[in-house]
Amino acid sequence: MSKFLSKRFTSMKAYVPGEQLSNKKYIKLNTNESPFPPPEAVENAAKSEAGRVNLYPNPDGSGLINKLAELYGVKPENVVIGNGSDELLAFTFHAFFDAGVIFPDITYGFYPVYAQLYSVPYLEIPLRDDLTIDLNDYIGAGKNIILANPNAPTGIALTPENIEEIARSNPDHMVVIDEAYVDFGALTTVKLIHEYQNLLVINTFSKSRSMAGARLGFAIGSAPVIEDLNKMKYSFNPYNVNRLTQIMGEKALEEEEYFIEKRREIMSTREYTATALKKFGFLLTPSSANFLFCKHPDIGGYELYSGLKNKGILIRHWTKPRISDYVRITIGTKEQMDTLTKTIEEILNEKK
Amino acid sequence: MSKFLSKRFTSMKAYVPGEQLSNKKYIKLNTNESPFPPPEAVENAAKSEAGRVNLYPNPDGSGLINKLAELYGVKPENVVIGNGSDELLAFTFHAFFDAGVIFPDITYGFYPVYAQLYSVPYLEIPLRDDLTIDLNDYIGAGKNIILANPNAPTGIALTPENIEEIARSNPDHMVVIDEAYVDFGALTTVKLIHEYQNLLVINTFSKSRSMAGARLGFAIGSAPVIEDLNKMKYSFNPYNVNRLTQIMGEKALEEEEYFIEKRREIMSTREYTATALKKFGFLLTPSSANFLFCKHPDIGGYELYSGLKNKGILIRHWTKPRISDYVRITIGTKEQMDTLTKTIEEILNEKK
Repeated sequence: MSKFLSKRFTSMKAYVPGEQLSNKKYIKLNTNESPFPPPEAVENAAKSEAGRVNLYPNPDGSGLINKLAELYGVKPENVVIGNGSDELLAFTFHAFFDAGVIFPDITYGFYPVYAQLYSVPYLEIPLRDDLTIDLNDYIGAGKNIILANPNAPTGIALTPENIEEIARSNPDHMVVIDEAYVDFGALTTVKLIHEYQNLLVINTFSKSRSMAGARLGFAIGSAPVIEDLNKMKYSFNPYNVNRLTQIMGEKALEEEEYFIEKRREIMSTREYTATALKKFGFLLTPSSANFLFCKHPDIGGYELYSGLKNKGILIRHWTKPRISDYVRITIGTKEQMDTLTKTIEEILNEKK
Repeated sequence: MSKFLSKRFTSMKAYVPGEQLSNKKYIKLNTNESPFPPPEAVENAAKSEAGRVNLYPNPDGSGLINKLAELYGVKPENVVIGNGSDELLAFTFHAFFDAGVIFPDITYGFYPVYAQLYSVPYLEIPLRDDLTIDLNDYIGAGKNIILANPNAPTGIALTPENIEEIARSNPDHMVVIDEAYVDFGALTTVKLIHEYQNLLVINTFSKSRSMAGARLGFAIGSAPVIEDLNKMKYSFNPYNVNRLTQIMGEKALEEEEYFIEKRREIMSTREYTATALKKFGFLLTPSSANFLFCKHPDIGGYELYSGLKNKGILIRHWTKPRISDYVRITIGTKEQMDTLTKTIEEILNEKK
């Protein structure tokens, strides 16, 4: 740390992303990437545009925004794009949460970091013992709210009706729904933005559209809220989404069938893997995401994580006390999950 | 604007980037892009990586950072990368300028926007009448300082000795040098970061490395200052530089000869164009950048801008009173500049 850093940031704890190790060939089940490459049309879009990177991207991203608006049944003025959904989450905390925000104690670990980054007071509301959200904590709370739906890392989803009740009962506060994992079995609340000006839905191409490496997020909300987010974007980095990512994103939206098929495959592999893990005695939360969150009575979360790492498989573990017994496992291909369950069986047998 | 936007931002004026029009084929001399495509190796790097965008990029960007460190004669811990230099400028204002910052009244128009975005008090110090910086305004100022070198949109450069004097005489404040245009005839102050912990140099691949559309910036400074900027990055968007841009940037650094040749060509075309404009009676600032900043006694800045736009050429004009007589013209290819000067001659003749 330098002596020049603002005192506000000296004790701030930055976010720690999942390991991206390059020194060994791992089966990577730790950052919720899609195991499937983008469709060829997306790859080809990048290839055909690569020779033109001397020119700035279109800062308003209109080509991509028009296509997103069409797909989600909203108008272009209801959509803004970002350098991953992380950037849009940051803009949201910065623009709207001066008066504070509430979110579950177990959720995307970046929310408290954003709160610190923008000096936003925040309150973490404990999930129930079964790691579900108690709606009563949010209905009529009179506070800004951010919820991941499905929640991370539990994978447990609320219904659009649940979220509507929260949005309706907090008309003077923002209700932000982070739908990064929504395409794996939950339902989007996008349609509700026409009715609730305080509702903002944030999503990403990283998980269900095989584009984590391209960095593309989008937010859908009422026109005034999107106008505010655009003001943040144009005051931070107008050219925030690069040229290749914009064209890849456009093409991806023409390939929904490919992605729908891959999501089905991931959901089916998730259930297949869950069944195998239950047979070993694992306890699992009911996941509507592209990962499983689970614990085993005979082995600690860290022990399982490091045992798998030693055997060439990366999964995610957090030391946070309430979930330190758990691990989060991204759903890869069926072959990868077979290797995983076989390796877990070995580790459990070694302990006997 | 929504009722949810923080009161701090209601009067904030966002940055307005140069026009990116798609409805007509313009000669684009308005955003200081390179007229030359990236070298083939850079294009091929993107092509070979495009099928792997389902995987996150390396958040620490070590491949690219190691190469940048080698090229600039510093250590990897002296380098951080960003989604364009705009993102790194934003982190810098956010991290270091709580106590305020000073910069010239005529400079990159984004500095006052960042100041507003992060509630940073700022003072704009008037350039001298000839649009040069008065060093005495900055030597021993006892304030945080940001200077574009060469300055924009004047193109006028300070020497490393000038900047050393400023850094040496303000040991308790940050001195940030924005070297976006340094490769077109000015000298970098990067070597001084070893001696002055308060000196931070920010640069971009957008101008002299033909990668505006890929979004890649970098900052070089003392290890503690870079550590602080990394903390900002990991608290905002750890995966801020996407996968294709990282690999393109790496390849670009292996192609310095191509870029050196293209910079020479741009500088030669700049002098060629300046000579032509002087013959027409234009007054020009002495530019060390890839643009010219000029005015003509017989035609206003806006009139020239709109006259050229009507004839298919985009240049940049600002309404700011002190420079409203001027226009900024990006240096394109020799053919483009021939068209420009011919068109300007037409416009001037039409006025007679």
